[in-house]
Amino acid sequence: MILAFLSDFGLKDPYVGIVKAVMLGINPAMRVVDISHQIVSQDVMGGAFVLGSTFREFPSGTCFLAIVDPGVGSQRAGLLAVTERYTFLAPDNGLLSMVFRYSKKVTCFSIENSRYFRHPVSDTFHGRDIFAPVAAHLSLGVKPHSFGPPFLDPVRLPWPEPVIRDQYIKGEVIYVDGFGSLILNIPADLIQNREPVNEKFKANIKGMELPLLSTYSDVSKGKPLALIGSSGFLEVAVNQGSATKMLGAGVGEPVVVKIL
Amino acid sequence: MILAFLSDFGLKDPYVGIVKAVMLGINPAMRVVDISHQIVSQDVMGGAFVLGSTFREFPSGTCFLAIVDPGVGSQRAGLLAVTERYTFLAPDNGLLSMVFRYSKKVTCFSIENSRYFRHPVSDTFHGRDIFAPVAAHLSLGVKPHSFGPPFLDPVRLPWPEPVIRDQYIKGEVIYVDGFGSLILNIPADLIQNREPVNEKFKANIKGMELPLLSTYSDVSKGKPLALIGSSGFLEVAVNQGSATKMLGAGVGEPVVVKIL
Amino acid sequence: MILAFLSDFGLKDPYVGIVKAVMLGINPAMRVVDISHQIVSQDVMGGAFVLGSTFREFPSGTCFLAIVDPGVGSQRAGLLAVTERYTFLAPDNGLLSMVFRYSKKVTCFSIENSRYFRHPVSDTFHGRDIFAPVAAHLSLGVKPHSFGPPFLDPVRLPWPEPVIRDQYIKGEVIYVDGFGSLILNIPADLIQNREPVNEKFKANIKGMELPLLSTYSDVSKGKPLALIGSSGFLEVAVNQGSATKMLGAGVGEPVVVKIL
Repeated sequence: MILAFLSDFGLKDPYVGIVKAVMLGINPAMRVVDISHQIVSQDVMGGAFVLGSTFREFPSGTCFLAIVDPGVGSQRAGLLAVTERYTFLAPDNGLLSMVFRYSKKVTCFSIENSRYFRHPVSDTFHGRDIFAPVAAHLSLGVKPHSFGPPFLDPVRLPWPEPVIRDQYIKGEVIYVDGFGSLILNIPADLIQNREPVNEKFKANIKGMELPLLSTYSDVSKGKPLALIGSSGFLEVAVNQGSATKMLGAGVGEPVVVKIL
Repeated sequence: MILAFLSDFGLKDPYVGIVKAVMLGINPAMRVVDISHQIVSQDVMGGAFVLGSTFREFPSGTCFLAIVDPGVGSQRAGLLAVTERYTFLAPDNGLLSMVFRYSKKVTCFSIENSRYFRHPVSDTFHGRDIFAPVAAHLSLGVKPHSFGPPFLDPVRLPWPEPVIRDQYIKGEVIYVDGFGSLILNIPADLIQNREPVNEKFKANIKGMELPLLSTYSDVSKGKPLALIGSSGFLEVAVNQGSATKMLGAGVGEPVVVKIL
Repeated sequence: MILAFLSDFGLKDPYVGIVKAVMLGINPAMRVVDISHQIVSQDVMGGAFVLGSTFREFPSGTCFLAIVDPGVGSQRAGLLAVTERYTFLAPDNGLLSMVFRYSKKVTCFSIENSRYFRHPVSDTFHGRDIFAPVAAHLSLGVKPHSFGPPFLDPVRLPWPEPVIRDQYIKGEVIYVDGFGSLILNIPADLIQNREPVNEKFKANIKGMELPLLSTYSDVSKGKPLALIGSSGFLEVAVNQGSATKMLGAGVGEPVVVKIL
């Protein structure tokens, strides 16, 4: 079984290694693939976006361990979510919001059976004490319902829906990637359903009107453009540069796509 | 065998990958788990703390490769340390200080048998030329004494012991983690042995008096607190914030825990 | 088969994890070793240097996946290069320049057979859609010529050759590593062929004349020196410090090694 691991632990401290150590102590055959451990500290929405734009690339049967957990040690539940293809372990704080949005059928359990925990359970590191041993036991074949009772109403973060009109779509930046590209809340199909996609589409951001093109090198070096990004959302980028720096725009910045 | 790997190599350069390449060339079945490669460059004490607060989470039989090595190429020895559960490879500069502190019985060898080295041995990258091939041969079953003679007096860094009185414990910050939390040299049991732990305990740092609580969310967002951290030491943190930034305190900052 | 992976994707975004996910979906037995994902964004020359100074450490049979790809989605070809010991996958933009320089016999193919691609193929993420599935199919035993026709003239970046005279060698900085050491375009053998290497050699950089010594601790803490670095090139470093910061020098800075 592949365990795909996402967190805001960073790579300076040993927390990622400790979680892996606990899992390998229970199931030495586990294979861990890191998605990212540099989610901005305690940014649940950013973690939800990264996980949501990634999980469908993994093979069926993958278990996802996602930990961005500002409420660790409080009364928030620990979630085990099962979909047709995957299993997810995460705190119940909205981190699975985009997983829920993109999965047809989800069954959730509240992780409560302390028989599968590492003891003593700390109040500050459930990744090590609860999620890691539960993930390892899952990989050994323990059934999801063994970890706790069904959980009916997990937290879903509000998703900023784009406003769709005949002549324009209003959206906003939801994520800034490491290249400085601005990813919008406008899914590719909203654009692609209006084919032909061509010079009639313009993205307006920060007072600039950008063409909608296919790839970065469709403009000259240092020039901005809009394109349908690899994560399936519209994106504003700069060829061989950083859109967030050039445009001075970040998460929440409004964008209007005009269809002329 | 699991090889747990800690260094100050960083992740920009290929040094971590090169060490793994050399090991896999000798034993293609090795499994490597990274603890951290972002120990502050040449900070032996920081590396000793991270390794010391991590190694006991790994399964029995794990071999640890720890390289923070400002004296590479000088006369400092290369150490192979064997405890009841683990094996450690590191330069003899104090990097194993906390391992020695927490291990009952340790036998050390000086790594000298060049038959197990990669040749030519450089003066600047013993991780690649000495430690990596020795780790790989260890994993293939070569006995510890085959690598060199016993080594009797490895370097131990001075550990800042807390001062314990009836009414207070005086300690200091020994590590700042990636969330900005301040980890103190005061082990949890010094506090827990004085149960009940309750509102009678106050941590004084930088002129502030902080309550000793269970978890971050026991105070409101942005507020500081003291708590027993997951590494087994008292810690000063800020709920959803950074204690090092808020308090302007780093390694060496004195803290007094008053028992009222 | 070992898959050694180098990119400029960074570790904040999920791109590295996505590439691994696609490969594991096709061949769950693949073993991935990361070389670096922190090549400076779109710095093909930096990536070429890191790959070129690393690949020979890997065991025979390793496949290298190298992605620094400012021209993704343009007409640049995708390369599959086969040497006596290794296989390489990379965009045809010069990223394999140092591999070509150090390999006797290289056969290149243009990756064109879309039967082995992930569909739909995006214009912005060939790492996921072309290189990852091709790497996975290679690891399953698909022959290199199955992926496309021979490719005769791959891009080779101009290499700044050192100027060699009886009394001096003129070179320049080609890479700054994470410790701040300055790596020069002067291969070790240019120096070693003039043995005995001794106090007669001096490296002149930024108006300073530095001794050529064996290892960092041959000078006192904070002092600069020249030495033959572990990558096989002459290097300017500072004992327990950063040469790039102390000397204010980066890539392209000229250096003259005088043989007195």
